[in-house]
Amino acid sequence: MATLRAELGGAASAHGGAVVGPDDSPDLLLALEPSARDIPGAGPDSSAGGFRLVRDDGRVTVTASSATALLHGWFHVVRLGAAAFDGPDADERHTPALGLRMLDHWDNVDVHPYMGQVERGYAGGSIFYADGRVREDLSRVTTYARLLAAVGIDRVAINNVNVHAREARLLTEDLPEVARIAAALRPYGVRTHLAVSFAAPMTLGGLPTSDPLDDGVRAWWREAADRVWAAVPDFGGFLVKADSEGQPGPFAYGRDHADGANLLAEAVAPHGGVVHWRAFVYNHTQDWRDRATDRARAAYDHFAPLDGRFADNVVVQVKHGPLDFQTREAVSPVLSAMPRTRIALELQVTQEYTGQQQHVCYLGPWWSENLSFRPWGHDGASVADVVAGHGPDAARPVAASGGGGIAAVSNVGDDAFWTGHPLAQANLYAYGRLAWDPTLDPTAVLDEWISLTFPGADGAVAPRVHDTLHAVMDDSWRTYESYTAPLGVGFMVSPLRAHYGPDVDGYEYSKWGTYHFADRDGIGVDRTRATGTGFTGQYPAPWRDVYEDLATCPDELLLFFHHVPYAHVLHSGTTVIQHVYDTHFAGVERVRDTIAAWESLSGSIPADVDARVRERLAEQLRSAVEWRDQLTTYFFRKSGVPDARGRTIY
Amino acid sequence: MATLRAELGGAASAHGGAVVGPDDSPDLLLALEPSARDIPGAGPDSSAGGFRLVRDDGRVTVTASSATALLHGWFHVVRLGAAAFDGPDADERHTPALGLRMLDHWDNVDVHPYMGQVERGYAGGSIFYADGRVREDLSRVTTYARLLAAVGIDRVAINNVNVHAREARLLTEDLPEVARIAAALRPYGVRTHLAVSFAAPMTLGGLPTSDPLDDGVRAWWREAADRVWAAVPDFGGFLVKADSEGQPGPFAYGRDHADGANLLAEAVAPHGGVVHWRAFVYNHTQDWRDRATDRARAAYDHFAPLDGRFADNVVVQVKHGPLDFQTREAVSPVLSAMPRTRIALELQVTQEYTGQQQHVCYLGPWWSENLSFRPWGHDGASVADVVAGHGPDAARPVAASGGGGIAAVSNVGDDAFWTGHPLAQANLYAYGRLAWDPTLDPTAVLDEWISLTFPGADGAVAPRVHDTLHAVMDDSWRTYESYTAPLGVGFMVSPLRAHYGPDVDGYEYSKWGTYHFADRDGIGVDRTRATGTGFTGQYPAPWRDVYEDLATCPDELLLFFHHVPYAHVLHSGTTVIQHVYDTHFAGVERVRDTIAAWESLSGSIPADVDARVRERLAEQLRSAVEWRDQLTTYFFRKSGVPDARGRTIY
Repeated sequence: MATLRAELGGAASAHGGAVVGPDDSPDLLLALEPSARDIPGAGPDSSAGGFRLVRDDGRVTVTASSATALLHGWFHVVRLGAAAFDGPDADERHTPALGLRMLDHWDNVDVHPYMGQVERGYAGGSIFYADGRVREDLSRVTTYARLLAAVGIDRVAINNVNVHAREARLLTEDLPEVARIAAALRPYGVRTHLAVSFAAPMTLGGLPTSDPLDDGVRAWWREAADRVWAAVPDFGGFLVKADSEGQPGPFAYGRDHADGANLLAEAVAPHGGVVHWRAFVYNHTQDWRDRATDRARAAYDHFAPLDGRFADNVVVQVKHGPLDFQTREAVSPVLSAMPRTRIALELQVTQEYTGQQQHVCYLGPWWSENLSFRPWGHDGASVADVVAGHGPDAARPVAASGGGGIAAVSNVGDDAFWTGHPLAQANLYAYGRLAWDPTLDPTAVLDEWISLTFPGADGAVAPRVHDTLHAVMDDSWRTYESYTAPLGVGFMVSPLRAHYGPDVDGYEYSKWGTYHFADRDGIGVDRTRATGTGFTGQYPAPWRDVYEDLATCPDELLLFFHHVPYAHVLHSGTTVIQHVYDTHFAGVERVRDTIAAWESLSGSIPADVDARVRERLAEQLRSAVEWRDQLTTYFFRKSGVPDARGRTIY
Repeated sequence: MATLRAELGGAASAHGGAVVGPDDSPDLLLALEPSARDIPGAGPDSSAGGFRLVRDDGRVTVTASSATALLHGWFHVVRLGAAAFDGPDADERHTPALGLRMLDHWDNVDVHPYMGQVERGYAGGSIFYADGRVREDLSRVTTYARLLAAVGIDRVAINNVNVHAREARLLTEDLPEVARIAAALRPYGVRTHLAVSFAAPMTLGGLPTSDPLDDGVRAWWREAADRVWAAVPDFGGFLVKADSEGQPGPFAYGRDHADGANLLAEAVAPHGGVVHWRAFVYNHTQDWRDRATDRARAAYDHFAPLDGRFADNVVVQVKHGPLDFQTREAVSPVLSAMPRTRIALELQVTQEYTGQQQHVCYLGPWWSENLSFRPWGHDGASVADVVAGHGPDAARPVAASGGGGIAAVSNVGDDAFWTGHPLAQANLYAYGRLAWDPTLDPTAVLDEWISLTFPGADGAVAPRVHDTLHAVMDDSWRTYESYTAPLGVGFMVSPLRAHYGPDVDGYEYSKWGTYHFADRDGIGVDRTRATGTGFTGQYPAPWRDVYEDLATCPDELLLFFHHVPYAHVLHSGTTVIQHVYDTHFAGVERVRDTIAAWESLSGSIPADVDARVRERLAEQLRSAVEWRDQLTTYFFRKSGVPDARGRTIY
């Protein structure tokens, strides 16, 4: 409540459990009622719950059963502004659709030789760490918690899922430092999680094994968890990347991932903790010559058979696509394969494959597409329903433990604008809003963000500024897709520049399982049951058939599911090769339009923001031209098919 | 002479200027005669000179006019062994063909974030530097000098031509440390050179400019040189990479490279110093879309017009090929374009593009091809003649200042075997031997090395061991070529792995000017005057015409000079595409043969050498298979032409 009082300003006053404000205004009452029955409460290990908002003749009362939920209610009023008071009388319950709403930081304590301070970070250093240790001054962390509270996020994992030796010690000798971070997050109701290494009993505990069924290992984890909660009483839980890209895991002992996850679940259960266990498990030393192995199949093949075996406080965290946060890929079939398991959807707010915060790329629409995807067809549950805890039938009640919620990799660093590209802040905002309510229209969320971020002198955004920003951002993900990843082909990115910029064959002869198989005749990955890897069979009907059949497979995923000749005619009426040409030329023109639109705002945007955005837009255009020219040239050289419109190809 | 006495053992005794030994043997007399007229002497700024060897009834007398030359004479006797004494009576003058014989170390004082301690180093750390400073213990440097003296090398540049901030200070505040290195090299007659930054007057001297025509800049360099020679009286001179790949240079001031080089030449002249000025100047931010700009042309375009303008103590150092130390490329036309300039040939002993000391690749034959190339046809001078100081007519006398000699990037580090791959020591050996006498048969040089390196119990190499090692090494460069770089196409290497391993398009859409232009119809770079970049016109007759004409262009350089269809028929009778397939499959088989041959030596090779070589051979095979499979697959996918022999292509 202290935080809420501070938010409301010195003039706020407390009356028992209630806070009135701001400026002692009689129009707003914020009331904490821990025992109230009619306020949306929290699940067993889920978040702070929701709030009730009553508007009565222009006066607003917000009640909640926890201080954090009340804080979320307050920010709800702030977001609405005058509209909170102006509407007709109302009595609303605002309950977050997803109980667990988390941001994962891939921050390293020590600067990693390749990955730097923040793995896949494009916004400067870490807000948590510098010079090989937790920062002395954590005031920015508290400010970050405030940002998160304003969009309803209440859990943060503070270190990289690739847990190196230095970072592993956060679990043990650095616990006082972790407690300092937790204390900095706590005022805004944000709980701290740690990514831990499955090998910790050996590397930190000196045990001879990390076997999940070994009694000594079980005891070690229980004691480790006890120590963590002793240091941080509201600690959230552990996040684990196991048997993935070199991280240790249960496979080394002939155990499976349920054994591994349940080991940690047992340790954290007495404290009400949760274990986020990532499903991102695949063979990362694949042979490119082997066309039968399909990375897209891997997570399902590993995890679907384990459905029902995970403890109640385990959340299996599934990337939205079966590959890796591509600009466009199919929705992961794991999301619909484990009805007896708590599943979290994992998104990537940091723009690893979507322009690395050099390119404008508002990801709200892409996340919304994933959240609203209905694996069992249009009468079944959506992905959002699944992670809220529903089975195929969204109408049936959720289990007591709830769903696994949602998690995402943060895009925040110590950059002056928090996110490198100032407009990338919208992604952080949209992630929080969609986590609270996945049915929100991402375009409306964008408009919210614009209004809140670029107020004019009178507090309201000027219509021209609003419309221009909307034009710059709303379709920017599809623009990015248009000049980078045609028809669901991904990974044509530069290994040398850490996935930034084009390299059509960059991952073609590699060990990562990421191929497009382009030859002089055609392109794409045959993932059908009939002639390919059989991946389509991991989907329930109707998608297993929709994707299987060229006649019904959506254009935007064509090359994700099928290998077709360049002359194959799309549903859109154009050929594959002409589509590649057309989208790449059009994409660059859209970037030029974006720049013109932004420049028309000259004088209406704070100078520092304007300067930063202009610098990034220039780089975006340079990069988009490079994408266009490399991709059109590559495919012209390979296909020999000239552009029907005779544009310049090199 | 102290060194020579130590070499000869405690039993050696001195008689005036003469040393008798070893074991006071009356069969060998080594005599220093500084004023003798009939002993090959040194040029003005060239090396220690040669020696005279007289054999009279089984007794050998070596005389020289410098201690270093006498040392070289001693190692000559060591190399010959009993044969030095067994031959008929003789009176021989042994004069090095090239006065300046140098090794360049691309060693960094500080570990560079990308390039490491030694740029392009594949043999561990630097023998000079560790932990950000000159090593305390330099005994290994003295041992290295002994290695070099044994093959007649007498100059070493001790730091990277890419001079970073830390390394720049070797020229100033670190001079006492440089003097320690020089002292460690001196016992074996090896003189120290420094790579310097053209911007040093600004970065070290605090001047506002580095303009070569500025009086303050000239004075700064003179004083810098004075300080260096005061610290190291036998200092050799400066090595400069200017206006190249980001290094500063005279272009910034509108000056040319003669202005730049002469600035330093003026500073070192009073001390008899020499300036090695690299001709490796090209546009490294080229646009791949631009097919008119040709990196191969760049050095000639920059330097040929400056012929005659360089001071006498400037050596223009020219890489053997116009690109960059490729496994196969044409000979640089700069070597025949500057008859009034002292030209040095630059080779690369470290195997940047030739297997990085993971692959067996004896480079003697490749260097010999370059040295014996005759730019003006078979009656004209060779490249070896040019760098010895001859013009087009090798019969005409050399200018007093002599030629520019030879330089090479060292392959030595702090590895237990000095060179990472034990067999890579042969490259260091061959470089020294060919620098002394470029007309030596590289195969004979290899046999020398084998005999000296793998003596049996009786001091002589067993014939079976000799023949097997010969088979493993003699053709290993062509084997490497066969599975990596067909028909003169270079740079199909991985940017991600620092030029190791295949990536056919790795440098195709890059800024480096390194393209093969493969499309579905053909491959190669058109460098003809008729239809291409005109590079062939940089050669004198006959090569300008030989290379221009498809009918006369040698197969091994076909794609370096011409863009041809895959079905083009080579002089060898096969097509380009079938050649790609055949050489890659054959190359892998030759690696298998190499491994079988090596394994047949089991028990005849020291165990540690055997273990290291086997480990490298396994990697060579893995890598060769990867090269074969990626290149055959790439070109099959692109050309659509099946292998005539039906082998597996993916």
